[in-house]
Amino acid sequence: MLIVKKFGGTSVGSNERIVRVARRCVEEYQKGNDVVVVLSAMGKTTDVLLEQARAINPRASKRELDMLLTTGEQTSVALMAMAIQAMHVPAISLNAFQAAMHTTSNYGNARLKRIDTERILHELSERKIVIITGFQGINKFGDYTTLGRGGSDTTAVALAAALHADACEIYTDVDGVYTADPRIVKNARKLDEITYDEMLDLATSGAGVLHNRSVEMAKKYGVVLVVRSSLNDSEGTVVKEEVSVERMLISGVALDKKAARISVMGVKDEPGIAFKLFNVLAKNNINVDIILQSIGRDNTKDISFTVDEDAADEAIELILENKNRITLKSVNCKKDVAKVSIVGAGMVSNPGVASKMFEALYNVGVNINMISTSEIRITVLVEEKDGEKAMNAIHDAFGLAES
Amino acid sequence: MLIVKKFGGTSVGSNERIVRVARRCVEEYQKGNDVVVVLSAMGKTTDVLLEQARAINPRASKRELDMLLTTGEQTSVALMAMAIQAMHVPAISLNAFQAAMHTTSNYGNARLKRIDTERILHELSERKIVIITGFQGINKFGDYTTLGRGGSDTTAVALAAALHADACEIYTDVDGVYTADPRIVKNARKLDEITYDEMLDLATSGAGVLHNRSVEMAKKYGVVLVVRSSLNDSEGTVVKEEVSVERMLISGVALDKKAARISVMGVKDEPGIAFKLFNVLAKNNINVDIILQSIGRDNTKDISFTVDEDAADEAIELILENKNRITLKSVNCKKDVAKVSIVGAGMVSNPGVASKMFEALYNVGVNINMISTSEIRITVLVEEKDGEKAMNAIHDAFGLAES
Repeated sequence: MLIVKKFGGTSVGSNERIVRVARRCVEEYQKGNDVVVVLSAMGKTTDVLLEQARAINPRASKRELDMLLTTGEQTSVALMAMAIQAMHVPAISLNAFQAAMHTTSNYGNARLKRIDTERILHELSERKIVIITGFQGINKFGDYTTLGRGGSDTTAVALAAALHADACEIYTDVDGVYTADPRIVKNARKLDEITYDEMLDLATSGAGVLHNRSVEMAKKYGVVLVVRSSLNDSEGTVVKEEVSVERMLISGVALDKKAARISVMGVKDEPGIAFKLFNVLAKNNINVDIILQSIGRDNTKDISFTVDEDAADEAIELILENKNRITLKSVNCKKDVAKVSIVGAGMVSNPGVASKMFEALYNVGVNINMISTSEIRITVLVEEKDGEKAMNAIHDAFGLAES
Repeated sequence: MLIVKKFGGTSVGSNERIVRVARRCVEEYQKGNDVVVVLSAMGKTTDVLLEQARAINPRASKRELDMLLTTGEQTSVALMAMAIQAMHVPAISLNAFQAAMHTTSNYGNARLKRIDTERILHELSERKIVIITGFQGINKFGDYTTLGRGGSDTTAVALAAALHADACEIYTDVDGVYTADPRIVKNARKLDEITYDEMLDLATSGAGVLHNRSVEMAKKYGVVLVVRSSLNDSEGTVVKEEVSVERMLISGVALDKKAARISVMGVKDEPGIAFKLFNVLAKNNINVDIILQSIGRDNTKDISFTVDEDAADEAIELILENKNRITLKSVNCKKDVAKVSIVGAGMVSNPGVASKMFEALYNVGVNINMISTSEIRITVLVEEKDGEKAMNAIHDAFGLAES
């Protein structure tokens, strides 16, 4: 079997942790498996480097930032190779040049295009554990790029796809995917299995175990993902196309406190207004989530939508800059809101899921501000202070604590 | 003009120093010159990384050590590019992959073989300051290598040769090359010019301004070197083939306290013994300096030689392992010795230089242990405690303080 294992920054945050991860990789290797390891930079390295860059040049070019940041993973992989070699198992570290991780050219947020696996396969054929820098690639200019948020997960999935790996294990500081965040919902339960689509909807809804890009890529190439803890040996959660057991109605509840609601009031009731509004935001890479449109007074409409809290101020600015084109009267922003979502592939064939969710919220007196649905997801916007209460109420109503 | 500037670890040891170096490079650029900058890792970075490696694996493979160490210079060059960009001057950093610094394959102590200058020339043609990682290269396997001691100087000289640069400036924490170490000889004087050969003999003799390899390469390719201070604007010392002024008898006095004398007693007086002895050392990369052979008792010989103090224990071990082949009776080692050398191209045509040196030592009561000479150098081995006294006496005797 060929196994790709990805460990995040926390898992390799100290010498001791590196040795622990090394032992884990050696155990896998000694079962007779081929092992490819993908690593992030150690602990807070990336943040420290960014701070240092900012001190020298607050507007450092993205090209040079990537040149700086890529040293982080290179340090991790070299130390990991040494740790494995200390256990008398052959190992070799490879950076993005050596592993030939070709990406698009945009620095700071590149996308993987192609991996030339020749070198990796050669090293595996010599029965070495191959340790590869996550998060980084090289572009057509022969420059380092980085993959943006969740980059190392993406590296791992892409490698698993390119190498036709039997599994891609993503090690993190949690045991797997839970029915809800265990820090908020005390009786949250770990799921054994979940589908790609459910995982995607959970990620979009603020359950941050895996980044969307990596799950999308896994789905596209049929890579079976396993989310496991780097701190213990528990089984983790398998993410795949179809789950084998009869499905529960819903798999999990997610809470996203980082949402903000923007309301654009009094736009003209004529074609193209919504396009103009959201086009301005899209062109500036601002993701819009729930959208709601209602009739206003005097032949006008009100359009409300949610964005990531961090992007709210920029969104408002952009809207005001285009005030005349969008024909708005006023705009306001509310940041103390939260998105609560339920996700489940079983939802498609079961009517009444939404009403059961709304009933649970009504029973604990939580007011619903906006609603959005997809085939396997229902999201409501509530006051931020009500978020955790809402999450617990829904978790109980659907009986998610019982397996 | 095309100028290559090399700055060592101390010169880029902090954000402030990076900014100071950046300013210096920008000044050169604004004169209309093309500027290539070669950097070492910041301050003690390399030592810190080595320590971290040792903690994880005391016998880490050299291949992985190089993978780890090369992050040091990459950090320096990225930060330098940012610092220069902050001054509104275009700059780009390149690592060994990007600057195509091809080396031999031996990790930890590789030699530069070839530089493909295409990328560098392209960036220069766009009027960018090009900042290149010193000390590192890539080998035929596509792996990082490092160049060993004095590696960044070698990188700078090799680049100057490959790019046909007009000058190669080596910035250091001293003002230039002195007639003797100013910390030991108070009235030591900075030299305006010195020949490659003198510089080579000074370096071999323990005057650590430039490493031999870089001077050898400069001589081979006719690269004019300038040794300057990164802390002030003084002129520095020019190192070139021929110096223009009438030469002083000698240029400088060097002291090397890191020498050890090994005496191999009672070896058979027959052919091949010296070969067997020194071949064992050479095969293990131990450099031997002064060699002295004398007649022993009972048809045997004694062979004494000096090695670097750090290599003495290993040398003894190797000799004892080959005791029978070398036919020795006993071996002993003396570490409290020092080499004192005088160097000067003028020496060749002036008899009496050696006797003047020996007279100076006699006058201050310093006993001479061994003697070695080259065309432009005389080295004596003395007790370590006499080293500084000997140096001062010679400096005075040759009137080196007067320009």
